[in-house]
Amino acid sequence: MKKLINDPKNVVDEAVAGVALAHADLVTVVTDPIYIVRKDAPVAGKVALVSGGGSGHEPLHGGFVGYGMLDAAVPGPVFTSPTPDPILAATKAVDSGAGVLHIVKNYTGDVLNFETAADLAAADGIEVRTVVVDDDVAVKDSLYTAGRRGVAGTVLVEKIAGAAAQRGDSLDEVAEIATKVNSQVRSMGVALTPCVVPHAGEPSFTLAEDEIEIGIGIHGEPGRERIKIEPADAIVERILGPIVDDIPFASGDKVLLFVNGMGGTPQIELYITFRHAFEVLASKGIEVTRTLVGNYVTSLEMQGFSITVLKLDDELTELWDAPVQTAALRWGR
Amino acid sequence: MKKLINDPKNVVDEAVAGVALAHADLVTVVTDPIYIVRKDAPVAGKVALVSGGGSGHEPLHGGFVGYGMLDAAVPGPVFTSPTPDPILAATKAVDSGAGVLHIVKNYTGDVLNFETAADLAAADGIEVRTVVVDDDVAVKDSLYTAGRRGVAGTVLVEKIAGAAAQRGDSLDEVAEIATKVNSQVRSMGVALTPCVVPHAGEPSFTLAEDEIEIGIGIHGEPGRERIKIEPADAIVERILGPIVDDIPFASGDKVLLFVNGMGGTPQIELYITFRHAFEVLASKGIEVTRTLVGNYVTSLEMQGFSITVLKLDDELTELWDAPVQTAALRWGR
Repeated sequence: MKKLINDPKNVVDEAVAGVALAHADLVTVVTDPIYIVRKDAPVAGKVALVSGGGSGHEPLHGGFVGYGMLDAAVPGPVFTSPTPDPILAATKAVDSGAGVLHIVKNYTGDVLNFETAADLAAADGIEVRTVVVDDDVAVKDSLYTAGRRGVAGTVLVEKIAGAAAQRGDSLDEVAEIATKVNSQVRSMGVALTPCVVPHAGEPSFTLAEDEIEIGIGIHGEPGRERIKIEPADAIVERILGPIVDDIPFASGDKVLLFVNGMGGTPQIELYITFRHAFEVLASKGIEVTRTLVGNYVTSLEMQGFSITVLKLDDELTELWDAPVQTAALRWGR
Repeated sequence: MKKLINDPKNVVDEAVAGVALAHADLVTVVTDPIYIVRKDAPVAGKVALVSGGGSGHEPLHGGFVGYGMLDAAVPGPVFTSPTPDPILAATKAVDSGAGVLHIVKNYTGDVLNFETAADLAAADGIEVRTVVVDDDVAVKDSLYTAGRRGVAGTVLVEKIAGAAAQRGDSLDEVAEIATKVNSQVRSMGVALTPCVVPHAGEPSFTLAEDEIEIGIGIHGEPGRERIKIEPADAIVERILGPIVDDIPFASGDKVLLFVNGMGGTPQIELYITFRHAFEVLASKGIEVTRTLVGNYVTSLEMQGFSITVLKLDDELTELWDAPVQTAALRWGR
């Protein structure tokens, strides 16, 4: 295992210390317990958004804290949910009295810990709503999940709900928008290589030299099947098919197409897959009107990618286009 | 070799086709010969900036085409300079009569081909200036270079000179700013793993399981030495020392600190190295006033990173902060 780390025990502490130094204009990092909070939190009168989960998926979630997106992110240890304590502390730190939305990827640990934190916050008089994201069509009831997993679609939920909160929507309205995005977004991923959790020191699984895993989870948990590697276009078709069939997306739909890198895949390859995903959707009469390409929900140094498709309407498009200023997504302000 | 590609021969063509579809709001992709051009080029009265070089370093350079940065980028085959033809075509496409600045990384092939294109453009009545970037302190007269190599500092030259052109500076003034940035920026990199050029199909070099290369070039060309892997902080000190000593940077300097990922390194590790680089500079009285962290000048899927330090003054800081709208860098407009 070759990693740019010091002691595996300190990986998250040292990384968030780096985030604090690199993005002092956008965020404050609180330690003991650790969370990353928008510099100007709590924002008076605004519904606050809190997300979090195991580390190792950066820029998710800390890279999305800032104007127009998250108010706080709570990083757990690598691939391990944060406990209720820091989630509660972050929730208290960002609440301005307008209430807090928890955005939670559907993994058992995350769901339980956010639930506990929400109960404790409620006992302190903070109104909390929770939206659980479960966009991964690959499998149901996976290694760490009851139901579908929450993966790259989480970025779109956070951006669009964040814009709704920023324009002044109420807690119920922001929760409704987040729920709507989750209901209209579907994802699926592929791994070419495994990744190594620092404190484990060994790959979490193995793949043969000519093998890829279709439907991989963002912690390397098993997908649908292992196959011999194929040309990129064929791989795109394998994962885009189940995504399109699921809702289903249909001719005439306008969508946001998001190709996400798992961390170790060159950008040139992401654009090759984006190209074909766009073409396949076009051939079905599905119009790509918004796009996102890059490493946004990663699995450490895993090579691979995922495709996410979100059905848009005028409101979701307007919220997607709204200004955002975070370390990992920024435009238009 | 596992890659998300179809035919290795079509990697660049298919990737730029993806760029065209993903970023149609920002750029137009011209084929035969291939170049990526700002959507609204030529911009009346504005000096135009053209850069380029071998592909495989994305987002460099295509990801930096847009408002406030490059007017065109010319991607060659992977790790191979573009020929003069597409450079000339891009130069003609962006010239509004105010002249064109070529920003060239110091690699022999790039320097020769941009020079030929500049001569041909001049023969067509286009005024061209050229700035050669050579920020890498690791080695002189490397595998593909006479003198120092041009590496991650190129991003800072392109951003700052792009802002000068955008505010209306003349060709001489933009060239002067670019030259100044190059004179004040220094970089050095480290590789943990090699990368595989698609049409080669094999790693361009090998590193033992416990070995890293200090001073690596962005094509995997040799650096200063191979050592056993060390803690991240020790590696940071090894490459930051020669950077600081070179100009030298001194107590009281204000600098931009840029930690660049080589493509396959998790973001969490980049922030760990950023943290320590910031601390080391602070301990020397060097104040980090601007920051950049991420994969901006990559070597395909190579694991590793580089550190770049740019000495700032009020003018360079203002130009760095100026609005930019490109696929890979955007803020403030």
